[in-house]
Amino acid sequence: MADTITLLIEPLPADADITRLDATFHEVDASMPALRVGELSTQRGDGIFETIGVVDGHAQETRPHLERLRNSARICELPEPNLPQWEAAIARAVAALPPTGEFALKLVLSRGVEHGPAPTAWLHVAPAAGFVEVRRRGIRAVTLDRGYGRGTAERAPWLLLGAKTLSYAVNMAALREAKRRGAHDAIFLTSDGYVMEGPTSSVIIRRGDVWSTPAPSGAILHGTTQQSLFEHLGATGRQTEYRDIPVYDLETADAVWLVSSVRLAAGVTHLDDRDLPYDADEARELNAYLLSPRD
Amino acid sequence: MADTITLLIEPLPADADITRLDATFHEVDASMPALRVGELSTQRGDGIFETIGVVDGHAQETRPHLERLRNSARICELPEPNLPQWEAAIARAVAALPPTGEFALKLVLSRGVEHGPAPTAWLHVAPAAGFVEVRRRGIRAVTLDRGYGRGTAERAPWLLLGAKTLSYAVNMAALREAKRRGAHDAIFLTSDGYVMEGPTSSVIIRRGDVWSTPAPSGAILHGTTQQSLFEHLGATGRQTEYRDIPVYDLETADAVWLVSSVRLAAGVTHLDDRDLPYDADEARELNAYLLSPRD
Repeated sequence: MADTITLLIEPLPADADITRLDATFHEVDASMPALRVGELSTQRGDGIFETIGVVDGHAQETRPHLERLRNSARICELPEPNLPQWEAAIARAVAALPPTGEFALKLVLSRGVEHGPAPTAWLHVAPAAGFVEVRRRGIRAVTLDRGYGRGTAERAPWLLLGAKTLSYAVNMAALREAKRRGAHDAIFLTSDGYVMEGPTSSVIIRRGDVWSTPAPSGAILHGTTQQSLFEHLGATGRQTEYRDIPVYDLETADAVWLVSSVRLAAGVTHLDDRDLPYDADEARELNAYLLSPRD
Repeated sequence: MADTITLLIEPLPADADITRLDATFHEVDASMPALRVGELSTQRGDGIFETIGVVDGHAQETRPHLERLRNSARICELPEPNLPQWEAAIARAVAALPPTGEFALKLVLSRGVEHGPAPTAWLHVAPAAGFVEVRRRGIRAVTLDRGYGRGTAERAPWLLLGAKTLSYAVNMAALREAKRRGAHDAIFLTSDGYVMEGPTSSVIIRRGDVWSTPAPSGAILHGTTQQSLFEHLGATGRQTEYRDIPVYDLETADAVWLVSSVRLAAGVTHLDDRDLPYDADEARELNAYLLSPRD
């Protein structure tokens, strides 16, 4: 079976009721050109995306990802995606994958070709990088100023802070800066010193038995993995909360986690120049849950 | 002759000394797929670009654009571009265009395909939109908060503020917001109320005989058209300066101009809810200069 699958999708209006959804996408060879140079995704980073983890033939949390895609589309004034169409495309890709192993499935909805009539869309799934060691041993992280004060997103919605857009050059630059400082990942802070999110992850801290994550204001993405983990924590008797988290609370937490769809839960063992407490059993528990089939 | 030309370019190292540069690019049909879905330009807005105006067979200010491309590459840690290669590609495209008329020539340098060995690059030239009326009559503009305070760029270089990256979703959203407010364009302000730049232009104000533009700190792009215009103004006896411009100075200026490579000089006739002075003769003079061959 193929372990890399690319589907080009002809995006349907949200209210289109088509029974033969399969006819609206087709497989292409990822090593061959598939996009035009006029693509606004490539010229302007003008589009949105989601990355879904696939574990042993199961696409994790498909619906929350698609709902976030819809929310990103709303913020970016892109046509509302047809969720059944995306579900059908995901199902087709997953069915073609090997039945075991971990994969990263990426959905992209672009504004389309400049002056073109319609958005373009595609799905690409490939084997996930090996994160077994990272999940076990944790990572080093650095804090980086994101440049925005609290309240900016509400005041300036054109900054698209709550949307998962393709304009990720800053996120990639932050990861390079983290590596330059000898770390694996970064945690963005507001310019006034509050925890936001990682460039490609959500931040969760634990103090005693209370698990906290930054309030999902418009300034950060509402993490699908974070929400799923909070459900699990709540269901197993732990207290969870959304609140403003000053950097001091991050530095003095009993545990700091960066969670994301494919790497899953990575414990932060070092933050900037300081050691953080790290519990390998906790890492095992969180990742065992996140690797189990979730919807 | 073709009025739309696309060249795919195999980017050479900056120090490569190749005599047959023509062999390093080839023409493709812009209506056909040319890029792979793994392109980081499209997945992450991870690349840089320049847009050069071509007027009656002459590419304007090629060298300053290429030098800015090199500066963007440095900020984004992309391989330094080979400027003679880009010059050769531009020359080839321009030679194939009709000898009269205005065109927009876009250069793109992308980080390449994910996990791929090398960056990808292309050039695309197409007829410019008709800006004759805009240059004559001016435009309405609104001010929009860019969310960053002064000094952010220096403090947080990973925000890539001085680079012309492909991550332009916010710039495009700002233009949509301007249109929603009944205007044609936007002027970004720092969160503490200083003038930055337009989403795709530089801001110049005039008070009496003094022409000012925001100091080219790391927070804004150093506009090629602005620099060229300042040379012209200086050469014709006008005083020019770089300085911090508080929004009050914008609102009370004797003239406000948004200048860019293809639209050239657009006078701002209305800023938010207020009328601004507008001099059609000045617009004519500035655009006559900007339409003349410049290097």
